[in-house]
Amino acid sequence: MIVGQSDSASVPIVVQKYGGTSVGTTDRICAIAERVGRCLKDSPRVVVVLSAMGKTTDQLVALAHAVTHDPAGREMDLLLATGEQISVSLLGLALQDLGIPAVSLTASQCGIRTDSAFNIARIESIDTRRIMQELKAGRVVIVTGFQGISHDHEITTLGRGGSDITGAALAVALGAQVCEIYTDVDGVFSADPSIVPSAHMWPEISYEEAIEMASSGAKVLHPRAAEVCMAYQVPIHVRSSFKATDGTWIRKGEEMVMEQAAVVGVSSEKEIAKVTLLDVPDSPGLAARVFGDLAAENLSVRLIIQSASSDGRGRITFVLDNADSEPTARLTERWKREKICGDAVVEHDVAKISIVGSRLVSTPGLAARMFSVLAREGINIDCISSSEMKIACVIGAEHLDHAVRAVHNEFFPPSEKTAKAKGNRRIGHGAEAD
Amino acid sequence: MIVGQSDSASVPIVVQKYGGTSVGTTDRICAIAERVGRCLKDSPRVVVVLSAMGKTTDQLVALAHAVTHDPAGREMDLLLATGEQISVSLLGLALQDLGIPAVSLTASQCGIRTDSAFNIARIESIDTRRIMQELKAGRVVIVTGFQGISHDHEITTLGRGGSDITGAALAVALGAQVCEIYTDVDGVFSADPSIVPSAHMWPEISYEEAIEMASSGAKVLHPRAAEVCMAYQVPIHVRSSFKATDGTWIRKGEEMVMEQAAVVGVSSEKEIAKVTLLDVPDSPGLAARVFGDLAAENLSVRLIIQSASSDGRGRITFVLDNADSEPTARLTERWKREKICGDAVVEHDVAKISIVGSRLVSTPGLAARMFSVLAREGINIDCISSSEMKIACVIGAEHLDHAVRAVHNEFFPPSEKTAKAKGNRRIGHGAEAD
Repeated sequence: MIVGQSDSASVPIVVQKYGGTSVGTTDRICAIAERVGRCLKDSPRVVVVLSAMGKTTDQLVALAHAVTHDPAGREMDLLLATGEQISVSLLGLALQDLGIPAVSLTASQCGIRTDSAFNIARIESIDTRRIMQELKAGRVVIVTGFQGISHDHEITTLGRGGSDITGAALAVALGAQVCEIYTDVDGVFSADPSIVPSAHMWPEISYEEAIEMASSGAKVLHPRAAEVCMAYQVPIHVRSSFKATDGTWIRKGEEMVMEQAAVVGVSSEKEIAKVTLLDVPDSPGLAARVFGDLAAENLSVRLIIQSASSDGRGRITFVLDNADSEPTARLTERWKREKICGDAVVEHDVAKISIVGSRLVSTPGLAARMFSVLAREGINIDCISSSEMKIACVIGAEHLDHAVRAVHNEFFPPSEKTAKAKGNRRIGHGAEAD
Repeated sequence: MIVGQSDSASVPIVVQKYGGTSVGTTDRICAIAERVGRCLKDSPRVVVVLSAMGKTTDQLVALAHAVTHDPAGREMDLLLATGEQISVSLLGLALQDLGIPAVSLTASQCGIRTDSAFNIARIESIDTRRIMQELKAGRVVIVTGFQGISHDHEITTLGRGGSDITGAALAVALGAQVCEIYTDVDGVFSADPSIVPSAHMWPEISYEEAIEMASSGAKVLHPRAAEVCMAYQVPIHVRSSFKATDGTWIRKGEEMVMEQAAVVGVSSEKEIAKVTLLDVPDSPGLAARVFGDLAAENLSVRLIIQSASSDGRGRITFVLDNADSEPTARLTERWKREKICGDAVVEHDVAKISIVGSRLVSTPGLAARMFSVLAREGINIDCISSSEMKIACVIGAEHLDHAVRAVHNEFFPPSEKTAKAKGNRRIGHGAEAD
């Protein structure tokens, strides 16, 4: 992602992104207006990125389903883009009503250029001139999240979680001092608090940890938003829309006040499907063909495990969203006809549990501890995938909540919660201890 | 109004405008898609202009009222513009679902330039290149009515009834063979059928008659739309969205198949206010000052009557929307302080009844007949204004329906309805009798 000219403004800029729940009602929009007003005392230059109000996107999708069997493509983006246009206009009116100068801009008006991939566009550049001009004129700038404008002047959308990406890209393009992500939870937790009530919130984690946590099911942030900020080292602050307290800072590992923990989180994902291709000939280019076909259909694969058996015919397993399993099943039929695999098994509604941490690879025995816990609880591990920062196990969906509690309990025993958290993250030797 | 480059396309173009009721539900949008599909057999190049779905605009206005005391200006236009963006996207999806190539365009995408007067913008030009390109590629072009884009790339709206103006301006800019206005009534009637059930529909009327009828309360069409089409002689066809039958053609008087009637309609308006300035000194420039002040506040005056009394101090009476009476009352206080008038009376909820016809001025005795009917029915006439094509009387709102029925009965006696209609409009000597 190339981001446009960063303006070396002498006055610091704060980018705030509010999600759908945070702008869910007109009362909440008025509350955001007041919050922005308070923020202006410390940071005179504020850019606010908004999602669509609560259920607006769902309602628009329902309207589309009522008129077509295939709600996709160019017209769908034109339709969905109205959701954020409504919320930014309302916040603009609410701020003006408080006597705070404000201007609401569409993606087209604030120069958020994307490629032409409708429904899943990527930001290519941001021309920050209009935004800087409005900021210098003393106005709060409110920007539609989730959308952009292509080179041929078409309205595009960035896909699920796109407003986070808009916020991060704007923060980078504007050289902001922070990208604040306001959400309905307090910050980034060691596990989903709805599954593990004793989960605790981290005051800070590294970009890499945030990306791995987000990629493996923690819903506080889109992983691409963390990637974008990491590339340009703009700190992210994930925090609650409803509280004034600090949430979780996401920054460069080396700059963190506390040392990084071995395990920062147990993340979990439901509603995923596992596809296993059996009896795959050991000839070059087959995996490239399989994942090329999936990419061509915009099917996003979460996890890939390939193993060769002794007779030279192996298996390829991959995991994707339940919603993507039907088009994938159609592809497997083609692959069978073309002898890319002997057979294929598609299993719906499996689940995935992961442990994440920057120091996972350098800390021996963590994987073994995770597997032992699952074994002790009688939970069968379907397959395992690991990277430098993550160990993921595919298990039956019915075991997921139990598995998350058990694994979290192993790495963050509730009885010693405070001690453990301290043990995991010793106060560092940096000067900026808070 | 200057309209952009007209493309001298060899293939005729039809512009169809559908109002809010016509696109009120997804079922109706699907019905329009089918209607457009049928229309394509005769006219391969169709441009569709849509209003927002039924109550959408009201809902957006309600959201705005929930966040601000003064829902107006730039942000309000950004908010309201989403209404048409939703309806055009949905019709695009519905047409594509029928296998009909279609593209939905915002005012920005199809180059509808306006001035910068938010909430009441005027179209300055239309750059038809994108639309022509899409039409030539065989696509139905769907355009957001009611809105435009200013020279500094701001989204503007045209005010109430603005989609009619969009339709007319597009028809002119594209050199269309007809501008079809689809609505929830069958055409232009001799009176409001909800007041006068025996009112009859005209197969054709002149632009001038349509403008006068529309300006004096008939709601089928925005008068500016008829003005725009008249200037470039594009015929308008006002017809029902729900029936296949012809409605009312609006064209040049000389081209009409039938001779024009003396009276084409009895139109009526409620919810208006009458303001009388008393004891106005007879010095030059006072009327200019009064109506200049009203214009500066965007208060639109419907009717002006000025009379001088023998002592050199006169009165000025004018009529405007009930909604505009409060800001006008504030102005009258200022005028009194500045000795522009001695006193002022603002009366809410008066009503206006008019008779309209191209040949009104050349047909003696019509005004007298109207006044006699009202007198016979015991209805007091508050004030009278007349132009070449219209005689308007301000009366008490409680008498309006009765007055409309009585006056309509005078000029279109129900017993001889058919004969009268024929008598009023003899079959002409033109070759194109239908």
